[in-house]
Amino acid sequence: MTVSLADIREAAERIEGLVHRTSVLTSEKLNELTNAELFFKCEHLQKVGAFKARGAVNAVYSLDDNVIKQGVATHSSGNHGAALARAASLRGVPAFIVVPNNAKQVKKEAIVGYGAEIVSCEPTLKARESALEEVVEKTGATFIHPYDDDRIIAGQGTAALELVDQVPDLEAVIAPIGGGGLLAGCCVVAQEKGISVYGAEPDGADDAYRSLKSGEHVTSHVPDTICDGLLTTIGVRNLEIIRGVVDDILLTPDADTVKAMELIWTRMKQVVEPSSAIVLAAVLNNPELFRNRRIGLILTGGNVDPANLPFSGC
Amino acid sequence: MTVSLADIREAAERIEGLVHRTSVLTSEKLNELTNAELFFKCEHLQKVGAFKARGAVNAVYSLDDNVIKQGVATHSSGNHGAALARAASLRGVPAFIVVPNNAKQVKKEAIVGYGAEIVSCEPTLKARESALEEVVEKTGATFIHPYDDDRIIAGQGTAALELVDQVPDLEAVIAPIGGGGLLAGCCVVAQEKGISVYGAEPDGADDAYRSLKSGEHVTSHVPDTICDGLLTTIGVRNLEIIRGVVDDILLTPDADTVKAMELIWTRMKQVVEPSSAIVLAAVLNNPELFRNRRIGLILTGGNVDPANLPFSGC
Repeated sequence: MTVSLADIREAAERIEGLVHRTSVLTSEKLNELTNAELFFKCEHLQKVGAFKARGAVNAVYSLDDNVIKQGVATHSSGNHGAALARAASLRGVPAFIVVPNNAKQVKKEAIVGYGAEIVSCEPTLKARESALEEVVEKTGATFIHPYDDDRIIAGQGTAALELVDQVPDLEAVIAPIGGGGLLAGCCVVAQEKGISVYGAEPDGADDAYRSLKSGEHVTSHVPDTICDGLLTTIGVRNLEIIRGVVDDILLTPDADTVKAMELIWTRMKQVVEPSSAIVLAAVLNNPELFRNRRIGLILTGGNVDPANLPFSGC
Repeated sequence: MTVSLADIREAAERIEGLVHRTSVLTSEKLNELTNAELFFKCEHLQKVGAFKARGAVNAVYSLDDNVIKQGVATHSSGNHGAALARAASLRGVPAFIVVPNNAKQVKKEAIVGYGAEIVSCEPTLKARESALEEVVEKTGATFIHPYDDDRIIAGQGTAALELVDQVPDLEAVIAPIGGGGLLAGCCVVAQEKGISVYGAEPDGADDAYRSLKSGEHVTSHVPDTICDGLLTTIGVRNLEIIRGVVDDILLTPDADTVKAMELIWTRMKQVVEPSSAIVLAAVLNNPELFRNRRIGLILTGGNVDPANLPFSGC
């Protein structure tokens, strides 16, 4: 493995005070419903509204003074872009975020709000990569990949490290899988702590599942899921870490994710996005696997548009 | 006053362990937006999803063994019914809840879920009162009024007592006003602690405002507001306590309450109902009054139907 528990411990020290140590919530009703003891790690209450704040701060604060002064760059229309912008702003260095020109205005505003510079490009992989290359060349900024990066993986892993500290005798942890930064971090912690670890993946974006089952890295896939935080393909480092450690990837239909999201909203009164709620759907869909166990579920983010919700009637 | 700080302290001891000591949340973004320091007391994360759990437990546990064994009764299609049902179930005594026959199925299920008996009646004040009288006569149960009751007021006041304990140097507290149980409890605490206290009331259900301004108890009014927890008329005891103590009742249009609700959802990721969000709307509408002050806001409940939300597009 390219990331060790020591790396995650170092990351935890590095980011302390710069991100929230998020709460863990429980719900008697959801425990009854699942016949398990569920512990929800509230990363939707994290800075920038997502666990991505952890990896971004760890990456930015890992770099030497003479490197970081040139700034950092990435491509992201989502939370990583905002998280990196925030981390750079905290350290007082520039950030350059390549954003496709069809990205939502609210996402762009979040990035600009943290003082970063947006580099607009056509919404294709090629345009994104060449825009990023250009800005890195021009500015000398360090490229921080959204997930296929050891500093990012170590940073995201701090969520799991906190969770096992906050919940004694935890038996398993479940995290959503998109690019695999968070799940890889969870795998490192879970292996060292001797607990089980599961990924929850939309059945319409099952590249990680297929990569693990086939032994080949599935890199071309056309995702079709409501979980807009889980569209990305699993990264090389991420797959390497997850393989052999993860107990299983639990494929989950969107309809079940929406039901789980409604349960979290109505029972726990927490606004989470589908990409978060998928972890509860995975528990509900696998009752025998989780019965009577103490399970940690990472609620990764809560960035939803209240005017456009997937519940019936909305 | 019929309720003292000592009564609220006693209530706090009585209900300890039977209700949650709820968290206090803060939001940098909402502080920036309001130029104030806001501390949100999370009663939407309380048992039964509302502060009503406090008063109900205090009332049920205040009664002598030989009285309480006959059970308790009330009329409520809302959270007080569920809260009283739960409190009675905890003490192992029967509860009889008079519910209009047009009440929502989900509300009835909550009450039945706590083992209470539902007494159905026509949706008129007269039918409700005679059904209640009948059940009290038949069973010997003690009637616990939803708000016009000293035990209820003392119980609800424990939310404010906790808040001033959790937030050092709090300067003011704002609570929504419906029947006035919570605001009366807040007034007792605020007066003793020497802090300001405000009620937030929908401008379409302004009976408390008019009662205070006119000096006469306005008892007949036809409320028109999205805040379905604030439809009731202020109680006699409640008005008596609030008068002379409350700094002001801040009337708030529903449109502003909906905007505040969206802010709490998107910025704090908390599912609150309009009757809760009105407290933030009151701050936003009175920027000079609250500027640079440390303000406690009581989020009273989070019982909303995700399929029927007031946001545009839904």
